[in-house]
Amino acid sequence: MAGIDLNADLGEGFGVWRLGDDDAMLEIVTSANVACGFHAGDPAGLMRVCRTAAERGVRIGAQVSYRDLAGFGRRFIDVAPEDLVADVVYQIGALQALAHAAGGAVSYVKPHGALYNTIVANREQAAAMAEAVRLVDAGFPVLGMAGSVFFDEAASRGLRTVGEAFADRAYTPDGRLVSRREPGAVLHDPAQIAERVVTMVSAGQVTAIDGSLIPIEVESVCVHGDSPGAVQIAAAVRDRLSGAGVEIGSFC
Amino acid sequence: MAGIDLNADLGEGFGVWRLGDDDAMLEIVTSANVACGFHAGDPAGLMRVCRTAAERGVRIGAQVSYRDLAGFGRRFIDVAPEDLVADVVYQIGALQALAHAAGGAVSYVKPHGALYNTIVANREQAAAMAEAVRLVDAGFPVLGMAGSVFFDEAASRGLRTVGEAFADRAYTPDGRLVSRREPGAVLHDPAQIAERVVTMVSAGQVTAIDGSLIPIEVESVCVHGDSPGAVQIAAAVRDRLSGAGVEIGSFC
Amino acid sequence: MAGIDLNADLGEGFGVWRLGDDDAMLEIVTSANVACGFHAGDPAGLMRVCRTAAERGVRIGAQVSYRDLAGFGRRFIDVAPEDLVADVVYQIGALQALAHAAGGAVSYVKPHGALYNTIVANREQAAAMAEAVRLVDAGFPVLGMAGSVFFDEAASRGLRTVGEAFADRAYTPDGRLVSRREPGAVLHDPAQIAERVVTMVSAGQVTAIDGSLIPIEVESVCVHGDSPGAVQIAAAVRDRLSGAGVEIGSFC
Amino acid sequence: MAGIDLNADLGEGFGVWRLGDDDAMLEIVTSANVACGFHAGDPAGLMRVCRTAAERGVRIGAQVSYRDLAGFGRRFIDVAPEDLVADVVYQIGALQALAHAAGGAVSYVKPHGALYNTIVANREQAAAMAEAVRLVDAGFPVLGMAGSVFFDEAASRGLRTVGEAFADRAYTPDGRLVSRREPGAVLHDPAQIAERVVTMVSAGQVTAIDGSLIPIEVESVCVHGDSPGAVQIAAAVRDRLSGAGVEIGSFC
Repeated sequence: MAGIDLNADLGEGFGVWRLGDDDAMLEIVTSANVACGFHAGDPAGLMRVCRTAAERGVRIGAQVSYRDLAGFGRRFIDVAPEDLVADVVYQIGALQALAHAAGGAVSYVKPHGALYNTIVANREQAAAMAEAVRLVDAGFPVLGMAGSVFFDEAASRGLRTVGEAFADRAYTPDGRLVSRREPGAVLHDPAQIAERVVTMVSAGQVTAIDGSLIPIEVESVCVHGDSPGAVQIAAAVRDRLSGAGVEIGSFC
Repeated sequence: MAGIDLNADLGEGFGVWRLGDDDAMLEIVTSANVACGFHAGDPAGLMRVCRTAAERGVRIGAQVSYRDLAGFGRRFIDVAPEDLVADVVYQIGALQALAHAAGGAVSYVKPHGALYNTIVANREQAAAMAEAVRLVDAGFPVLGMAGSVFFDEAASRGLRTVGEAFADRAYTPDGRLVSRREPGAVLHDPAQIAERVVTMVSAGQVTAIDGSLIPIEVESVCVHGDSPGAVQIAAAVRDRLSGAGVEIGSFC
Repeated sequence: MAGIDLNADLGEGFGVWRLGDDDAMLEIVTSANVACGFHAGDPAGLMRVCRTAAERGVRIGAQVSYRDLAGFGRRFIDVAPEDLVADVVYQIGALQALAHAAGGAVSYVKPHGALYNTIVANREQAAAMAEAVRLVDAGFPVLGMAGSVFFDEAASRGLRTVGEAFADRAYTPDGRLVSRREPGAVLHDPAQIAERVVTMVSAGQVTAIDGSLIPIEVESVCVHGDSPGAVQIAAAVRDRLSGAGVEIGSFC
Repeated sequence: MAGIDLNADLGEGFGVWRLGDDDAMLEIVTSANVACGFHAGDPAGLMRVCRTAAERGVRIGAQVSYRDLAGFGRRFIDVAPEDLVADVVYQIGALQALAHAAGGAVSYVKPHGALYNTIVANREQAAAMAEAVRLVDAGFPVLGMAGSVFFDEAASRGLRTVGEAFADRAYTPDGRLVSRREPGAVLHDPAQIAERVVTMVSAGQVTAIDGSLIPIEVESVCVHGDSPGAVQIAAAVRDRLSGAGVEIGSFC
C-alpha cells in the first residue's frame, strides 16, 4: 500500500498561553504545520517547536493565517489580495528564519483556519495565497484541500499541491469542512477516527455529515493537536494505519 | 577622501498611517533601514518600500525593534534574552522574504529606537541582538553605535560592525543619543546639520549637547526620514558631502 | 429650516501616527465620532481629542469598530455575534472613561468602516451592535444609515436612531456607500460637496453614482476628517449650510 | 479575629487560550481581579467572568496592565506617564462597561505583573497609576503592596489603599516579590502556603526568601488562579483561614 503523511498544527500557543502538547505530537506526526505569529505563535515558542521538529526529523511547514490573534484565525477577513500576498510572504519568511536558527528549514506551506476554508472557493484570496508561496519559493509544496480553487491557482503557478484529509473533522456533502460553529463539526472517538482515516487512505473516501460517501484525495492526513484527547487520537490514527500496513512518511 | 554611507529609517507607516516620504528618501540614501512590523510596517507597505529600494539599488537593512506598535519601539521593554533572540530572528526573516519577493535582499541589520539605545550598554540584550543576527546570517553587517556593548557582542561573534552617526540627533558627552523626551534632542536646521555631518565624516568628531567635542567613528550617517523637513535635511547633507568631495556609497 | 448636525471621525491616529487635523475639525463639527482603539486611537491621543471636544462643547460619540488596526477597520470580519457584543461594549466603556477623565462624556455611538457597512444588511451583526449599545446605555442614540437593518434592530430595542448622510462619499442606487476600492467612491471638490449637502438636508435627496436621484433621511451629515482637503471641505459644508439658513447643532 | 479578603487574578485567557479555572476560583475568592485586555482578556471572555462573579456576589476589580499580550504584562515597559494614565483609564472603563453589561460593577483597581512591581518604587509610573484611578472614580480602593510608592501616591489623592499579601510568592527581605525568573519565586505546597497565610493574617508577618521574618500589612490575600494546583491551593487557604476562625469577606 502507498504511504501517507501525518500532519498536525503546532506552535499554536502565544506567550504564556499554551495549546496542545507539541512535544507529544512531534513523536507521532511526520509534518508539523507551525504557526507563524498571525493567528498564534510567539517567536520564542515557534523556535522551540522548530528545534524539536528538526531534532526528530519532522518536516516543518509554515501555517499562515489572517492577522487575527483574538479570533485565532478562524474568522473570515475580507483582506485585499495585495495585502494578503504580503501578509503570507511575511509569515513564511519569519518562520523560515526561526526554523533555520533552530537547525531546520521550512519545507512546505499550509493555510490555517478561515483562510484555509475561504480559499477553497474564493479565487481572489486563493490566487493571493498561491502567489505569495511562489514569490517566496516556487519549490514549496502547498498542503490543502484537493479540488479547491487554491489548488487550481497553485498548480497554475507550478506549485506542487498535496491534498489532505482531516481525521476528526466532519465534511459537508460537497467536500468542505463543517464549520466549527455547527454541531457535530468535530469527532472525538479515537477508534472511530482511526478507522475513518484508514478508509480515507485506502479507499479514497469519507462519509459526509449527511451520511453520503464522498471521494477524497489524500496524500496527508491532518490530526489535530489542540483538541481534548488530541494525542490519543493521533496515536490511534498512527497505530491503526501501521496496523493496516500503510507506510507513514513525509510527502516532501 | 574616504566614502560614506547615508542611511535612513523607512517603511515606518502602518496600514493607513504613513510616516515620512519614503520615495523621496530613496532618491537620497544608499541604505534603507526598513521596519519589520514590530514598531511599524505592515507587510504590503514594507514590500513596496523594498521594491523601490531594489529598483534604485539602495541597500535594504532589517530595522528590528521591540514589539511595540503603540510606542513605535521607543520605549524600553525588559524582554528576556531568549525572547529577544527569537523576536529579532522573526523580524529579519519576515523582511528577507518580503525583500526577496520584491526583487531585492536584506543586506544588513540595524536595531531601532529603544532597542538601539538599550544595547549600547545592556549586555544581556546586546548579546541577544547579536546572537539573533548571527543565527540568521553571520555574513550580515550590523549598523549601530561604535563603542557600544552591542558592537562588542557582535564582533565577538564574527559579525562586521558598521559605526554610524546621527545627522540630526544631539549627543551626550559620553557619546549616547539624548533622549527624545529631552529638549534639544533633535536638530532642525538643514545647513547646520549638513555642516555637522561633514565634520563628523572628515574629522571624526561631533559637538555634544554640553558643547564638548567628542570622537565619533563613522562609516554611515543616519538621516531621519520621519521628521518635518526630513527630505530637505537629507538632501542638504548629501549635497554638502558631495561638495566636500566625499564619495557616497553603501558600506556593503 | 430645520437644524442639522455635522459629524466627523476623529482620534484616528495611533501612537506616533496622526491622521487628519482633529483640532481644526473640532472648530467645525458639532459631533465627534471618536475612535475607540480597535481600528485606531491610542488612549492618550483619544483623551486629548475628548478634552478638546469637551472644551468646545462638541458632542463625543464612540466610534466602534472591528478589531483591526492593520486594516483600519475597513475589512469585513466574520465575528461571532457574542464576540461582537462584547467587543463593542468594551470599546464604548473605554471611551466613556477617557471622555469622563477629560471632562466630557460619551453621548452616542456610531459604527465605523466595514462594521458600518456590514450592519446595513447583516442582521446577526446588526443585532449584536444594537444589543451592545443597549447593554451599555439604552439612552444612547445611534448614528447610522436610515433604512438599515441596524436601525431596525436598534429601534426594536428602544434606541433612538439618527440617520446620517456622507458629504463626500458616493452612493449606490440602493442607498449604500460605494466601496472605497471602487473608482469615484470619494468626492473631492469642496463646492460640489457643499452644494450636495444642502440638497441632502433641504430636499432629503442625493444623486447616486449612476445619476439616479435617491431619497436620504438626514439628521446629521458626516464630513470626513482624514481625506486630503478635509478641513476645507468641512468648512465649505458648514459655510454653505449656514448661508442656506440651516441651523447647525448637535442631535443630542 | 478580623476578617480577610481573598483575591485572585481571573479572566486571563485570550480568545481560544484559557488560563486557570475561573469558575472554580469564583467559588473560593471574594474579590476577582479581572484582566482588562492589555495583558490578557478578550472582551467576550471578560464579560463571562464578570457575569459569573456578579451572580456569585464576588467583587470585580479592574486588573490593569502594560500593553503587552506577548509578555503577559510581566515585562517592564518604560511608558511615559501621560500615556500610562490614559492606558489605565481606558482599561478600567472597558471593564466597567463589560461588568455593567454582565449585571455587575467594577469595585476596585489592582495593577498587574510588571506594572505592579514597578510602582512599588517608580514614582512617575506610580503617580500615573494613582492619577488614572482618581480620574475614573476617586471612590475606588486600590489593591496593592503596603509601603509602596504607589500607595503613597494613591493616599495623597484620597484613594483608599488595601494592602495585600501573596499566598504563594516568595518575598525579598525588603518586602518585594522575588522575580518569577528567580528560583524559588513561587511556592507550590498547599499546606505550607495555607499555614503561611494564617501567619500573615494573624501575625502580620511573613518569612522572606532569606529566612528573615518581615512585617506585612494585609487586608487581602492574593491566591493565584493560573499556577498548577491553583484551585487546590486557594481552597486550602480558605479552609485553613476558616479553621483558624478568620472571617472571609470582601474589603469593599
